[in-house]
Amino acid sequence: MTLDYKSIAGVLGALLGALGVSLLAPMGVALAYGEAEWWGFAVTAAGSVALGGGLWAAYRPKGELRVREGFAIVATAWWVLSLVGALPWVMTGVLDSMSDAFFEVMSGFTTTGATILGGADTPAIEAVPNSFLFWRSLTHWLGGMGVVVLAIAVLPMLGVGGMQLFKAEVPGPSADKLTPRVTETAKRLWAIYVGLTFIQVLLLLPVMSVFDAVNHAFATLATGGFSTENGSVGQYGSAYIDWVITIFMLLAGMNFALHYQLLHRNVSVLWKNEELRVYFAIVLGATALLTFSLWSPTNNLLPSPVTLNGQVVLASGETAPEGGGVDVSESVTTDAPRAGGDDIGGGAGTEPTEIRGREVITYDSFADALRYSAFQAAAIITTTGFGTADYEVWPPLAVGVLLALFFVGGMAGSTGGGVKVVRVLLILKNSFREMRQLVHPQAILPIRLDHRVVPDGIMRNVLSFIVLYIGLIGLGTLAMAFLGLDWMSAFTSTFSCVGNVGPAFGTMGPTENYTHVPEVGKWVLSLLMMAGRLEIFTVLLLFTPGFWKR
Amino acid sequence: MTLDYKSIAGVLGALLGALGVSLLAPMGVALAYGEAEWWGFAVTAAGSVALGGGLWAAYRPKGELRVREGFAIVATAWWVLSLVGALPWVMTGVLDSMSDAFFEVMSGFTTTGATILGGADTPAIEAVPNSFLFWRSLTHWLGGMGVVVLAIAVLPMLGVGGMQLFKAEVPGPSADKLTPRVTETAKRLWAIYVGLTFIQVLLLLPVMSVFDAVNHAFATLATGGFSTENGSVGQYGSAYIDWVITIFMLLAGMNFALHYQLLHRNVSVLWKNEELRVYFAIVLGATALLTFSLWSPTNNLLPSPVTLNGQVVLASGETAPEGGGVDVSESVTTDAPRAGGDDIGGGAGTEPTEIRGREVITYDSFADALRYSAFQAAAIITTTGFGTADYEVWPPLAVGVLLALFFVGGMAGSTGGGVKVVRVLLILKNSFREMRQLVHPQAILPIRLDHRVVPDGIMRNVLSFIVLYIGLIGLGTLAMAFLGLDWMSAFTSTFSCVGNVGPAFGTMGPTENYTHVPEVGKWVLSLLMMAGRLEIFTVLLLFTPGFWKR
Ligand SMILES: [K+]
Ligand SMILES: [K+]
Repeated sequence: MTLDYKSIAGVLGALLGALGVSLLAPMGVALAYGEAEWWGFAVTAAGSVALGGGLWAAYRPKGELRVREGFAIVATAWWVLSLVGALPWVMTGVLDSMSDAFFEVMSGFTTTGATILGGADTPAIEAVPNSFLFWRSLTHWLGGMGVVVLAIAVLPMLGVGGMQLFKAEVPGPSADKLTPRVTETAKRLWAIYVGLTFIQVLLLLPVMSVFDAVNHAFATLATGGFSTENGSVGQYGSAYIDWVITIFMLLAGMNFALHYQLLHRNVSVLWKNEELRVYFAIVLGATALLTFSLWSPTNNLLPSPVTLNGQVVLASGETAPEGGGVDVSESVTTDAPRAGGDDIGGGAGTEPTEIRGREVITYDSFADALRYSAFQAAAIITTTGFGTADYEVWPPLAVGVLLALFFVGGMAGSTGGGVKVVRVLLILKNSFREMRQLVHPQAILPIRLDHRVVPDGIMRNVLSFIVLYIGLIGLGTLAMAFLGLDWMSAFTSTFSCVGNVGPAFGTMGPTENYTHVPEVGKWVLSLLMMAGRLEIFTVLLLFTPGFWKR
Repeated sequence: MTLDYKSIAGVLGALLGALGVSLLAPMGVALAYGEAEWWGFAVTAAGSVALGGGLWAAYRPKGELRVREGFAIVATAWWVLSLVGALPWVMTGVLDSMSDAFFEVMSGFTTTGATILGGADTPAIEAVPNSFLFWRSLTHWLGGMGVVVLAIAVLPMLGVGGMQLFKAEVPGPSADKLTPRVTETAKRLWAIYVGLTFIQVLLLLPVMSVFDAVNHAFATLATGGFSTENGSVGQYGSAYIDWVITIFMLLAGMNFALHYQLLHRNVSVLWKNEELRVYFAIVLGATALLTFSLWSPTNNLLPSPVTLNGQVVLASGETAPEGGGVDVSESVTTDAPRAGGDDIGGGAGTEPTEIRGREVITYDSFADALRYSAFQAAAIITTTGFGTADYEVWPPLAVGVLLALFFVGGMAGSTGGGVKVVRVLLILKNSFREMRQLVHPQAILPIRLDHRVVPDGIMRNVLSFIVLYIGLIGLGTLAMAFLGLDWMSAFTSTFSCVGNVGPAFGTMGPTENYTHVPEVGKWVLSLLMMAGRLEIFTVLLLFTPGFWKR
């Protein structure tokens, strides 16, 4: 039986129509600010509604959708919506290149937040019309909501990467039908998502304009990370803002089904849910380690860098003569945002230390060290990717902690990316089980999560997911290096895009952007963002010939 | 029931005694060359035989060993034998530090071949007495034999990392008793191992001294990689030697059970064995890709490096002004071994190209490109780690291919390291199965290897192994970076040691050594080598409290 292309077209039409309606929001912003580019949104909106409505009217699916059509819709929707969402950018000339525009919109919908703005061939964020900044944030917010519904209502039923574990927990009808489940779950979670966004806006308003507050709340709840400032959240230099956003990033990194339970006064989930406990344990542990390595008094306890033949060693393995001649150090300012491309300030009271040929930042004030540590730990584990400090100039221990958080990601059912806390927890349990099994070859040693046995099939799904996730990062790194990027940038940009984090290291570090990536590379990274966002299997499936044939 | 410590001590005693007898060989070499350090081997040999013999006499196990004691013996044996094998080095003052000596001997027994010789605080290889060079090669050869027996006779019965798949294929008694199986298998494979070594020595003799030929044959069959020349195999500059060693590395990377089958005229294994087919397919594919990127005419077809703000980007993400001022390029000579630490010549006819701030080597002659490509592909996939070229100055595509080969490693049951070809094959099959399963949720889709179904439990072992392998590399990288190494060196040295390859990138690249690694780091890397060599589970098991208690 072939794919039911008509039903697919019908549902895509509905989504396209919804996108068209959403485009009226940035159009409104453009009109409110008197920006000339409002027509780009208007034309795209009209086209989307017309085309989408037509498709829906003609091909609206009659019965229940099958699993196979579900996969086809999920994977093509992200692609089609990003293509259409990119049109206003190029139509109005705000961006010259379709590759750039598509990358930016895909980065928005997947809540990755990697940007091509602020590069040599693209406008600086400050030069972009407000309506387009709002459109970026809105792609985050819509994408985040889409992901939560997908993770809670759709993927568990499709059996992707062990997500079927959460079938029972979902706040929706228990029937095994896809359509009612999606719509019911969406309705129930929508209120929570909107509510949390509203509260964050209110909390930000005392120190931000309405426009900035709304944009940052959108980017926070979606764990997206686009900012209206080139210097990201660090530009405001406000401890209050940092802490508010830290807390809301952590809320966005939680399973939204838990928020639903909490709202219904089912407070026991707070200590009954193992994934939640591990999530908070990791956040607290990482913040402690980061503070330890960033606070000047404790930083001094760390080992000093290794020299080879009396030369300081750079990350590339190149050597530079100690103490002079070669100036490859990044400059660090101690009390103001840095000049040029380096626009995330180290914050006040920072103390640069010379380490392996580049400056490393530490903080004299414990409160500062804690604040920047907590913010960055939350920003990376939730894969929001906001910045208040340039973590590339942090001590090696801190960088190591962040790299580990890049991998972990948020909770399953959150807007966060990465492999998800629950999978990390399960593979750790599995490793211990495997070792116990070696000593007791005949014993049956079940793995439990929240006191329930995890079936072997699901455990295999989880292990396969992790292997595939890492394999995809390997392949992506090879592809990006092949396209001419240095290894550090190739690896960390792939790692960041598959995990939907946004910033990376090297030429795509927190103070840089993705403009200089070769054309083909932008499409590769876009595909990686989508693969990561859709739990990989969903996307790879479409590349298997068997999917389309039978 | 507690561990049977007496039996463990008894078997360790036997191994210690055997080590003592083996030490007579380098003692003989020392006497033959009139080297003053012969007494170091004599004293250690006498002590080992006395202590080992005493332990064996007192605690010789009466009945059959249990699985638990098997694990304890395997993991402690590598550690104890390395400690004892390090004694002659420090006793005679050839090396000053026990950390260095232990690292070198562990690197030998695990067939890793990472060396601390030739550094700032250690003698150059040319300055080391012949008897000690021979002792290094002998640790390889003995370790390689031990690993083959372990992989073919012991680990399948202990159920480690999916090795139980090979239970049936083993050339030994089919009884489920450990002791007769080990001794019988060892006897049968011993002849093959010795025979192959002998043939390689004969083939090398026309262009090498007997001493060099024996040492290089030992290092080849064990996929170890220690050379008697500071410039490794490249020092000889002989295409004949390169091709002979390439072929024998590939033979050593094959499952020795296959050699046994071939010897018994069972030629059909050559096309019936899936792992073997994949192994050769990878070698051929990698050689083709390497040749493509190294041969000047085809190299020109590759993408050029990406620049950021008009600056060439180094691997670290640092930038250097294009075309001048900062000299961080490695120097490349076109027809002679490089000076100083850079002692692996690029070979004749090389053509340096400027790429991202450092020189890249390509070859004008197709024969040269093929020769260096085939050698390095074989050296890395079999994890021998011999060098005829400095692959750090190869084009990015070539480096990517090599990094992938670092991961794959040899066949199961060979002397090679890495995750093993069969596991890579199985996880690929599993990924396709998982995707098919998504579309056919109810179907039973077995994974087959050589037309036999792989049980789900074994597939889970394999997946767990891969996850643990990668996790260990992650942890090791963090530890080495914490100790002060730059990220590139920290990652690649861990990657190389866990895979028992030897050379890495950065400060531990093919033209460098491990002398400058901090003291603690040498013990960490030693542990990683052992963990990699013993299929990880075997070593980690000993760190679980449950193993020692009940
Ligand atoms: K993000
Ligand atoms: K090796």
